[in-house]
Parts: sequence; structure tokens; C-alpha cells
Amino acid sequence: MKEILTLRSPAEALEALAGFPPVGTERVPLAEADGRVLAGDLAAPCDWPLFARGVMDGYAVRARDLEAAGPEHPVRLAVRGAVPMGGTFAGEVGAGEAVGITTGGMLPAGADAVLVIENARRVAPDAIEAVAAVGPGVNVIRPGEDFRRGEVLLPAGRRLRPQDVGLLAGLGVLQAEVRRRPRVGILATGDELVPPATVELAPGKIRDLNQTVLAAQLRRAGADPVPAGIAPDREDALRAAVEALVARCDAVLISGGSSVGTHDLVERVLATLPGAEPLFHGINVRPGKPTLCVRLGGRPVIGMPGHPVSSMVIFDVFVRSLLQRLCGETPRDPWPARRRAVMAAACRKTPGRDEYVRVALVPPAAPGEPWRATPVPGGSSAFGSVVRADGLVLVPETVDRLAAGDEVEVLLYL
Amino acid sequence: MKEILTLRSPAEALEALAGFPPVGTERVPLAEADGRVLAGDLAAPCDWPLFARGVMDGYAVRARDLEAAGPEHPVRLAVRGAVPMGGTFAGEVGAGEAVGITTGGMLPAGADAVLVIENARRVAPDAIEAVAAVGPGVNVIRPGEDFRRGEVLLPAGRRLRPQDVGLLAGLGVLQAEVRRRPRVGILATGDELVPPATVELAPGKIRDLNQTVLAAQLRRAGADPVPAGIAPDREDALRAAVEALVARCDAVLISGGSSVGTHDLVERVLATLPGAEPLFHGINVRPGKPTLCVRLGGRPVIGMPGHPVSSMVIFDVFVRSLLQRLCGETPRDPWPARRRAVMAAACRKTPGRDEYVRVALVPPAAPGEPWRATPVPGGSSAFGSVVRADGLVLVPETVDRLAAGDEVEVLLYL
Repeated sequence: MKEILTLRSPAEALEALAGFPPVGTERVPLAEADGRVLAGDLAAPCDWPLFARGVMDGYAVRARDLEAAGPEHPVRLAVRGAVPMGGTFAGEVGAGEAVGITTGGMLPAGADAVLVIENARRVAPDAIEAVAAVGPGVNVIRPGEDFRRGEVLLPAGRRLRPQDVGLLAGLGVLQAEVRRRPRVGILATGDELVPPATVELAPGKIRDLNQTVLAAQLRRAGADPVPAGIAPDREDALRAAVEALVARCDAVLISGGSSVGTHDLVERVLATLPGAEPLFHGINVRPGKPTLCVRLGGRPVIGMPGHPVSSMVIFDVFVRSLLQRLCGETPRDPWPARRRAVMAAACRKTPGRDEYVRVALVPPAAPGEPWRATPVPGGSSAFGSVVRADGLVLVPETVDRLAAGDEVEVLLYL
Repeated sequence: MKEILTLRSPAEALEALAGFPPVGTERVPLAEADGRVLAGDLAAPCDWPLFARGVMDGYAVRARDLEAAGPEHPVRLAVRGAVPMGGTFAGEVGAGEAVGITTGGMLPAGADAVLVIENARRVAPDAIEAVAAVGPGVNVIRPGEDFRRGEVLLPAGRRLRPQDVGLLAGLGVLQAEVRRRPRVGILATGDELVPPATVELAPGKIRDLNQTVLAAQLRRAGADPVPAGIAPDREDALRAAVEALVARCDAVLISGGSSVGTHDLVERVLATLPGAEPLFHGINVRPGKPTLCVRLGGRPVIGMPGHPVSSMVIFDVFVRSLLQRLCGETPRDPWPARRRAVMAAACRKTPGRDEYVRVALVPPAAPGEPWRATPVPGGSSAFGSVVRADGLVLVPETVDRLAAGDEVEVLLYL
């Protein structure tokens, strides 16, 4: 058991992971495009809207007819009919004329504005009085006003949102070229581990839970987990399992186990695989320090910590960023759900190291009061601590402790 | 076209929506449980851990042997072997003895603490010197220390997270009783609408995009969309379509369209359906004011605004909360991803009404500077505005405008 001597900073580890290229692309139907990452820029194939539309219910008019209109100076207009919804008005709006129109209707020829219904008084079956002026273009959206043909609306690397797939539907684009979901192998090591389906545990055995957690984390990050079970703690068996998995996956996570020399074993196996290039072994972070990474056949193979708590943190802080890269996603905050809170109790930590503290949140007792974050007891061996936690607080390297009352930002578990 | 006279406040509308009971339950395998809502409390079927485990690599010892140990006073211990990972040590740790142990190993009988490897010097093949004292229980997790048999770890109403399904795996619980995914019908109305697959648009026609957006929003909220196409703007056709959809769904969204009298039509149809109970028509919010809701056969039927921008906002602000109820979820912030920013430009709004303003975000130019939020131009008829937006800012009823430099909280689109 040797000490890890060359810890990388978290920034260095992230930089090493950022060097992997994105996976290939595939075409998916619109109904499956939400949440996928667009492979190329999508430019508008036409102007939007295609035709001038009214954006309020009222009357299509010529603005110049109503220049003098006001509550004290109603202007009478002859109503020449109404725009059929989903069709065109057959005639033209002439001087002193109006045509009924509802929101979304196609503006008839001759008209350049819409007088809203509230500013029109019906004074005869075929006549209204306008009691307000309306400028040219008011309550109208012109062709191409929202966007122009050729304009890039959805850039490559965008993870598509509901409105983005809605835009594709509106444009009649029924398929999207997106990045494949990265296939990520998960292999657990450790002679103490048995599958979750094991009913009776022999003394000293525990059920492997890391593969279940990692699979759920991977799915949430837009990847397809490839669970490969539990490898025995033997060099030949582990080497064969890793090689088989790398051959069919875009990345591999080896969940470390904690048997005698496991970390050494994983490192030795990875170091001696033909073509393996070590990227780092050890990150200056807690929990999760022994994390290691090699590049093998151009793909990342990550030795994850065996403690379930540590494994979760390393996934959230490092592997999620890697997956953004593999998905070809424009890099963005991998943890957008955050909440400000004040610490309800003090919390000590190891100096000189970024530490992620598990906290439970208590809502404000009264409006205007802050959320309160309480450190959850238990070390990284206490898995219940992360089940009881609502999120993590990053206490940076330079800070030695949090005091009760300190303001923090909680990275929320959703 | 009549004015809506009895606008509800957003809080009143949310309260009305909170009155619907949750859907039924089903059993799902562990691999499908992430993101589902637990139907009943889950209590631990056993203590955790099941046996005392070491939490560091080192030597299992009797703490009393090392009371006097220190750098200047090394204490020699006889090493009696090592705990086999995933098994039990055959003997007992006697006075003056130590047994090698790695993280996660089962503490052998007689030992009550683990001396970490860094504080042990190997002085002979079968002997070490301890150079530090270690208290009883140090570096050991005791049976039941993390949680006790019978303790409720996952309460009913919890939307399961990766660590929660991991806990089930660790306990050997291979299925979970969860709420069904609510089936939510989506029906669009409007004679101007044609399906997204339409290649050539006749004059005045537009492709329906709301169903695509709503389906994606529903999936993200844990519901199963049931798209029912476009109903013609006729009372009998709409009534038949709504009745058929309500019969097979847990909730129905009618995407309003904007033909002459569409809202009246939807309201009239809903009001005259046998057993329909109107809950509200009109919410004091912008965009999305004309939203309406009836209870029909115990199920919510919601008349959504036809403008795609408004439809999205009403879904995010109101329908997502309804879905939490239908899923039996413990109510929680439906919008946890938020970011503080300062307004980069001023923004006017309608007084006396909550307004959701679409904004684009610009990252800080330098560390310590704030994110900047710029209002996206375009009214609720400009769908491109929501595609260009990174999120929404809620400007409350009591505020008339935002000034450049105002601090705001942006509700992020993810």
C-alpha cells in the first residue's frame, strides 16, 4: 500500500478529462430529441413567422386612418368581414375599413396594424368606432420578425430543451442529428462484494450498491450504463474484464472496492494494458482522493473510489463534466441547482483540500429568513449520510472550517 | 369575446390544483426506480452496517494496548495475520496483538479500533510498532451505527434519487412500490393548426408545436404524455375528443389555439360536460392569463393558452406543481435551478400582475463579477424569444419595472 504522491488539483483533473473527443452522431425522431445534444448548427430553413400575423384579438386596420382617434374622437370604420382562422381574407382592407381578426390570424392585404377589441365599439352590424390611435405595425408580427431564414437558432453542442424540439416541430424538421448517448461501462471490484439480488449475506460480504448508483447517475447525465458485474480481485480477471468493456464502450468506470491492494491492482492492470496512458492518480479532494484515470484506445477509464459516498461525489464533480465532453455539449455548469443557506452548525475539515460536505436543509421558519444547512453526521463510510442529505457544500482548499451562521451555497441533490 | 372578470391570483390557482389526489401505485424493478415517487415509507429491514467494519487501511487493535503509544514511545504489537476481504478472521485479537485490515473489512473479535497504516511501522515480518494512540471505536463503524432496523430512511412521497435506489440495492430490495407515471392527454385546438409533418403550409396555416413542447415538459416532470392530435374548432368534435381523452388519462391539457371564440368554445364545452366542476378561468399572471381549469370525473382538465411562449410558462409555473400532486410527491420547489444575476437592461411590465420575463444570461467577465441577464426581445407571440432565453425572471405583481443593475433570480431552463 503506497501513498499517492502526486495529487492533482481538481482543476488539473478536470482539464485532463476535458481532452477526450465527443462520440459519434445519430439521427433521432423529434419525440426522442429532448435532452439530446445537437451535433451541428441548426439554421432556420425559412422566415418566422412566414406571414404577417395579428397578435391580439381585434380588427385589422390601416394605421393612418386612426391617427386622430381617441376616447373623445371616435373614428368610424366599415367592417368588411373577418379573417378566417387558418386561411386568408379574400379582399383587401381599404381606407376607412376594418376586418375582424383573432390572435394568430393572417393580416389581410392593405392592413398594417391591429386595433385591439377593447378599443373598438360595435356601432352597427357592419361598423365599429375606434376610440384609440394605433401606430403602423402595432399588434402585428411581421414575416421574419422573430427570426430570419439562415439564422442559427440552435447551435451545435446545445442540449435540446422542450422549446428547442418545439421549434423543430414548428419548422417541420422531424428528425435531429444528435450525439449518440455515450455507452459507459461499469465494473465493480472487491472480494467483499456480492450482487444486490443476494438474499443471505455470508459473514464479511456486502451487496454492491455502487453499480446501481452509478447507473442512475449515468442515465441522468444522458449516458447509457453498461453494467458488467463484479470482477474478482485478480490481475488476469480484471485485465480481461476491462479490455472487454473498453472494446464496447465509450468510457469505463471501475468501482474500486477496498480489498487488500485493490487500488494498486487496478492501477497496475491499467498501467500494463497495451497502449494505456496514465492521466492522473489521486485528486486533492475529499472524499474521493484515490481516483485515477488512464486513456486507453482513446477512451477514458476511471478508477472510482469504492466508498459509495465518495463514488457519488467523484461522479458529480468530475465524471459529469467528462460526460458533457463525450456528448459534445457546450461546457456549462454541471450543477445548476443550488440554494443559498446558512450553516446551522459548525463543521471542521481537512486543511489544504477541497472538501464536499453533505448537508440536510431546513426551510425558512418565517418569510425572509434563510434556509439552514446542517452537516449530516457520518464519514464517507456511512452511506445513510448521503441518503439523508439534500445536497453538498463545497468547502474550498483555503478554508479550514465552517462556522455556524456562515453563508454557503448548497449543491442540491434533485 | 368576453373579458375574463374573475382572475385568480397565482396562489389561488395553485391551491385549486393542489386538491387533486395522487394516482395509483405499481411495483417497478430497481433499475427503473430512479426518479419515481415512493408510495409508502421504506424502513430499514436490518441494521447497517450488519457487522463492525474498519473504515481505514491499517491494523485491527485493542485500544487499551496503545494508550501510551506516541512517536517517542512506540508500542510493539505481534501481527497475527490479516482479515480476508469479504470473509472473517478465524481467530481473536488478544492483548499486544494486531491483525491487518483494509477499508471495509470485518473487524475481528477482540479488536475495538483500527490503527491507520501511516501510524504503524513494520519492524519484523510478524510485528509492528504503533507510533500513535487510538481511542476505542476509532476508524471503526459499528453495527447499526449508520442506521437501525426499522428506521424510515425513505419516506412516502420521496422522488427517488441515485443514492436512494443505491440504498435499496444495498439492502437487497429489488423492487419498489411507486406511483404510476400520470398519463396526461394533450389535445390541440385551432383551425390554423396542422401537424408538424405537414410539408407545404397552406396560407394562414402553422404547424402545431405546443404538443411537442408539452410532451417534452411532461416527460421531464415524470408523466407520460398521451398526444391526441388537433381537434377541429367545433363544439361536438371538441366535446367528444375531451371525453374520450379524460376517460383514459389522469389529466388533460387542451392547448387553446386562437381561433375566433376558441377560449369560449373550450370553456363552454368543459362547462356543459356532465359532472364538470369549474375551478378557475383566468389567472392574474403574464403571459398565460386565459388559463382555465375544471374538475371532470375527479380529474383536472386544463385549458392552456395557445401562444407557445405562454403555454410553456403556464406549464412550468402551474402544471408542474399539479404533476407533483398527481405523483404523490412531497411538495417541493418545482424550480430548483436558479441563478442570481443583475439586469443588463431595464424592463417594463404590466402593473398589478406577476410577469415572467424571458432573459438571456451572460457569464461574468471576470471572477467576482455577477452574471448578467438581458431581457429577450419579442412578445409572447415570438417563439424564438423562448428559444433564445436561458430562463425566466419573475417580476412580482407589486413591481412595475426592473432597472438595469437590479439583482434578480433567474429560473433556469435546463
